[in-house]
Amino acid sequence: MDNNESNLLRIIGSVTGLDRAAADKARAYQARLAKPPGSLGRLEDLSIQLAGITGMVHNEPKKKLVIAFCSDNGVVEEGVASAPQSVTAAQTLNMAHGKTGAAVIAKRLGCGMLVCDVGVNAVINDPAVTDRKIAFGTSNIAKGAAMTRDQAVTAVMHGIGIVSGAVKDGADVIGVGEMGIGNTTTSSAVLAVLSRRGVEEVTGRGAGITDAAYKKKISVIKKAISVNSPDRNDVIDVLAKVGGFDIAAMTGAFIGAAYNRIPAVIDGFISAVAALCAYRLCPLAREYMIPSHRSYEIGYGVAADELGLKPLFDLGMRLGEGSGCPIAMMMLDAACAAMNGMATFDEANINDGYLDEIRKTDSFSVKGE
Amino acid sequence: MDNNESNLLRIIGSVTGLDRAAADKARAYQARLAKPPGSLGRLEDLSIQLAGITGMVHNEPKKKLVIAFCSDNGVVEEGVASAPQSVTAAQTLNMAHGKTGAAVIAKRLGCGMLVCDVGVNAVINDPAVTDRKIAFGTSNIAKGAAMTRDQAVTAVMHGIGIVSGAVKDGADVIGVGEMGIGNTTTSSAVLAVLSRRGVEEVTGRGAGITDAAYKKKISVIKKAISVNSPDRNDVIDVLAKVGGFDIAAMTGAFIGAAYNRIPAVIDGFISAVAALCAYRLCPLAREYMIPSHRSYEIGYGVAADELGLKPLFDLGMRLGEGSGCPIAMMMLDAACAAMNGMATFDEANINDGYLDEIRKTDSFSVKGE
Repeated sequence: MDNNESNLLRIIGSVTGLDRAAADKARAYQARLAKPPGSLGRLEDLSIQLAGITGMVHNEPKKKLVIAFCSDNGVVEEGVASAPQSVTAAQTLNMAHGKTGAAVIAKRLGCGMLVCDVGVNAVINDPAVTDRKIAFGTSNIAKGAAMTRDQAVTAVMHGIGIVSGAVKDGADVIGVGEMGIGNTTTSSAVLAVLSRRGVEEVTGRGAGITDAAYKKKISVIKKAISVNSPDRNDVIDVLAKVGGFDIAAMTGAFIGAAYNRIPAVIDGFISAVAALCAYRLCPLAREYMIPSHRSYEIGYGVAADELGLKPLFDLGMRLGEGSGCPIAMMMLDAACAAMNGMATFDEANINDGYLDEIRKTDSFSVKGE
Repeated sequence: MDNNESNLLRIIGSVTGLDRAAADKARAYQARLAKPPGSLGRLEDLSIQLAGITGMVHNEPKKKLVIAFCSDNGVVEEGVASAPQSVTAAQTLNMAHGKTGAAVIAKRLGCGMLVCDVGVNAVINDPAVTDRKIAFGTSNIAKGAAMTRDQAVTAVMHGIGIVSGAVKDGADVIGVGEMGIGNTTTSSAVLAVLSRRGVEEVTGRGAGITDAAYKKKISVIKKAISVNSPDRNDVIDVLAKVGGFDIAAMTGAFIGAAYNRIPAVIDGFISAVAALCAYRLCPLAREYMIPSHRSYEIGYGVAADELGLKPLFDLGMRLGEGSGCPIAMMMLDAACAAMNGMATFDEANINDGYLDEIRKTDSFSVKGE
């Protein structure tokens, strides 16, 4: 095992779970707020989770950051994507300059955006893009491994390092997004291996492809798995053989958030697959994850089920880039506002004797759907 | 027909539908944005709806306002509510002073809050509360009509007037909320009549009541409908006989939003019942409505189905007050940001020839779930 991999294992080993005492205090404080118990639903859960993450009952995330990892995928030469590879570089630059969907939504909702090149197949010479380029795209997974094992570890470490840097710069919560033509193909391949599901169950049409291209995409993913025989019990092996630099770096970002004890918001399909990789490498990382939307991409549900997480909303989105994260961050803001600003029963001039009756019933033991 | 009612009918008659030309232009502009067609899902729909409302392709709601109508319900003497009636007055004041769930969430997400007393059973002598008090609570619907027909019309007109005033003060979008102990009982009664559903199908536990109180609530609603025999084809009659001042004023608020051509966000169950009343009185008002969350209260789904609207998110919330509205307003902001700030294909240095293939498929004809 090389030095890089030892470092990764050391970081994973140092991740600890939520602060249960703080979470319990937050839960108890929620019960004191002047509202029917449980009536803020998942906003209450978010406030309790955040208390467990930070160790404090009252939190107010100030600096929110969507991080998009950008890279290219050699598998596009098989004709699995709807867009030409050049779109990755174009949109990486457009995103860094605030012109893509995720960038404008993030800005409008008060979130920063960090765009990181981990493997775009173009010379990106722009100070607005953080350079962690590992190579000019991966190799074609239908013919062999996407990258070397060392490159996969390097990508994961870059993800961790980017988050650690962001936390040093004050980030309180991150969202994890991406840009990379062909990355629904690699994500489906990784997910098929990790979930043991059939390729058809985890493969959608990505940005939009024809029926013929969709059939081709499925056969290419099957071929990639068969050619590479990734070891499903070794996530790094799976990422190296059928993944991409973006997914590997995003995996690192989720681990990095847990390592730095800040919440990490999952975006759509690709982000959820990376979150699953992080969970398998570092189970406690899941406690720091906040799902955002249910992606329209069919594999999303499989990844969410494997993670045991339920998305907060469903707007039929499938843009990627991290575009769903800012909305979830607003929900987190709402959750914190309720925790911090609502009157307690004592303060609200409400005789809470009436709660005794409520508490005798079990009508609040089930929340959400 | 008295003068008041003639005024209401005149206002309803002057409501017009969306500007289809502007909506079409917005739809066409969405197709020019550098993203896979339809990939922003319901955010695209929101931007198109808003264009139809304002007549402009590009919109940026600046002044967002949650309006909460507060009143008491005589039916609480039947023991249908979990909280004492005094909570209505206490929370009306707490809301006006920024201490309730909806108030703190609205403030955190940059929305204003207007608290209007239309019938609280207490002297509310506070400049932070807008006074449109019609009476000190309604009469007990289990024994007779909640209010006179004239009072119902007055309440609706107050709702319209409050919104017209807010628009004069610059409001671009409103959310419609409430506070009133016992108002899930009146809402279920109104909904049962308007939807012809069984009382059990539209009645939940409100803020939380025991099994015995729940059975009582259902029998009280049945009795109220039987005693009053409201005419389901006359919404004012239904509101007067088994409704409340809050629901009637909220009905007016939805009509007032359409009359003033601004979007109105529906909160939870009670708000959805008022939206349904507005839709039945003024069908075109529906085009100005934006649902927010799926309330945990079981009648919500029935009201939403009758309206033909699908909520944007589901957080298991059932607090009321308008607490779901600010989050939906953030989604509207995100929708506008995408419309206004994203690069078009021309600007994005993306050769959009690849879109020709996408457009040949029908994989984007179905959006959402």
